[in-house]
Amino acid sequence: MRIALDAMGSDRAPAVEVEGAVGALRELDGDFSMVLVGDREAIEAELARHPEAPRDRIEVVHASQKIEMGESPAQAIRRKPDSSVVIGLTLHKRGEVDAFISAGSTGAVMAGSLFILRPLPGVDRPAIGTVFPTAAGHTIVLDSGANVDTRPAQLVQFATLGTIYAQDLMGVEQPRVGLLNIGEEPEKGDERSVETYGLLSRAPGINFVGNVEGRDIIHDRCDVLVCDGFVGNVLLKFYESIAGFIIHLLRQEVGAKGLEIDTDRVFRTLDYTEYGGAPLLGVNGITIICHGGSPPRAIRNAIRVAQRSVQRGMVAHIARELARPADPTQEP
Amino acid sequence: MRIALDAMGSDRAPAVEVEGAVGALRELDGDFSMVLVGDREAIEAELARHPEAPRDRIEVVHASQKIEMGESPAQAIRRKPDSSVVIGLTLHKRGEVDAFISAGSTGAVMAGSLFILRPLPGVDRPAIGTVFPTAAGHTIVLDSGANVDTRPAQLVQFATLGTIYAQDLMGVEQPRVGLLNIGEEPEKGDERSVETYGLLSRAPGINFVGNVEGRDIIHDRCDVLVCDGFVGNVLLKFYESIAGFIIHLLRQEVGAKGLEIDTDRVFRTLDYTEYGGAPLLGVNGITIICHGGSPPRAIRNAIRVAQRSVQRGMVAHIARELARPADPTQEP
Repeated sequence: MRIALDAMGSDRAPAVEVEGAVGALRELDGDFSMVLVGDREAIEAELARHPEAPRDRIEVVHASQKIEMGESPAQAIRRKPDSSVVIGLTLHKRGEVDAFISAGSTGAVMAGSLFILRPLPGVDRPAIGTVFPTAAGHTIVLDSGANVDTRPAQLVQFATLGTIYAQDLMGVEQPRVGLLNIGEEPEKGDERSVETYGLLSRAPGINFVGNVEGRDIIHDRCDVLVCDGFVGNVLLKFYESIAGFIIHLLRQEVGAKGLEIDTDRVFRTLDYTEYGGAPLLGVNGITIICHGGSPPRAIRNAIRVAQRSVQRGMVAHIARELARPADPTQEP
Repeated sequence: MRIALDAMGSDRAPAVEVEGAVGALRELDGDFSMVLVGDREAIEAELARHPEAPRDRIEVVHASQKIEMGESPAQAIRRKPDSSVVIGLTLHKRGEVDAFISAGSTGAVMAGSLFILRPLPGVDRPAIGTVFPTAAGHTIVLDSGANVDTRPAQLVQFATLGTIYAQDLMGVEQPRVGLLNIGEEPEKGDERSVETYGLLSRAPGINFVGNVEGRDIIHDRCDVLVCDGFVGNVLLKFYESIAGFIIHLLRQEVGAKGLEIDTDRVFRTLDYTEYGGAPLLGVNGITIICHGGSPPRAIRNAIRVAQRSVQRGMVAHIARELARPADPTQEP
């Protein structure tokens, strides 16, 4: 198995990417190698700082261009054919690598994946799934920002994508699917939610457990939480920031008393980078999007998620599910 | 000034309400009295437990009915004319009290306020404003759940309602108004957001500072954060729960080390009940909605907010602003 990593994506690229890749190669089980895509010189300079790196399992593919954060995603993909994102995704498209990971511009990685890998047949809109830490485990929230103004039928597809992810990556046999809403009853919420509730209730292959309110997200009511990308993105970014804010308050309080506690451990429980980046689900390939501020640990965990996604055949699993006829009476 | 308090609303009614009212009368400055609405016997029994209560400033108005949490709000208001919510709001409508506070069903208090107090002329949809604690102060987020499927022009009204609240209650002269969105640029977000951005940019009397992302909510980018009630409600409930969750993680960590820290102080910073309930803005009166799980402190703080809203003439202020012609060239 070969996993391509955009070495130029993160805020501290390529240092973080190289350290994450070396860590993954040394610590993760399984026979895989890494393809680092980006400025060869910069990558080699970083690799030189890691004498422990298993060089026989690392290949560097040069990319002379880099997509910047502020660029229009679609334009950047068209205008920068020699960027690390386009080259990495093209390697994946050609079958030369089995997955692609980037901590670069989410919009560009998404646009590139849609243009180059293409959506799977039957997938209307691929979605970004983010694993939220909860009190008892994790919930994958999708869509986390790839799509706005989604239609109810598209939200039902997100439920299927999330179900397969939870089965293949989180080891949940019959994932509970919740619909993010502002009340528990079926008639609660906006028009989209009411219609989606009805569709999810009847959707084959979906273990729908009903509406999930904001207060219940962290209380493990579901394994898969379906929502429009607008509210999903607001929630995700709020979660990231609030965890940091509370830890900050706490450190002030602890500092004032001259005590030392392991806030890092608390923080880790809340750190979604711990769970290995956000998969773009529904494209014909494995794309994992990491936070621009990812530490090496997040990159290593994303590599683990990519590895497992390939091992489990998640893309074929999604393709199989979404090729099924929508009407269960027509199933073979 | 007379402030009516629904004594039957909270999860621990009327004990919490009576304790909150007695505390407010003893601790807050200003010449005001409380009208406790609900089961006279139960209220008197609670009052008997507070010998320190200034009885000359407390009136009990009997209500033989109580609206339960599960009831349909609109039906409950129609079918229970002798409920504490309907009686309290009717006292307010008749001018016998200056404000109404309830920790009962948000839906019922809202429906009752709309039916009995009525929206102010020019207000399309009254909105619930919730004060979010932030790193440097507070932001009022509206709508927090009264309205879904809002139109851009309605969101602009929320901006005006929030601006007046921030001026009158938070003491901000020119409140910064942000639009909750999933990116900073004007063209980001769903259709509603893009259109609202344009309207807010041109709205007279609004100090619009642009889009605010989920990660920036707690970083004090604005005093007023405008959003549809769907995402506002999800955020509010998530915020409430996540603060509790993090404190829980923390207590585990601290407990494991046998240390004691004042997590209550950290928690208080995050506790929106500290800020005195959520005003329903845009009705012809002062309605403050408290959390069902409110402690007496939250009731006391809501009384303080009601008192100040009356003192500042907030309702007349809103009426004046919203009666202004929308086109600034037509202003006198």
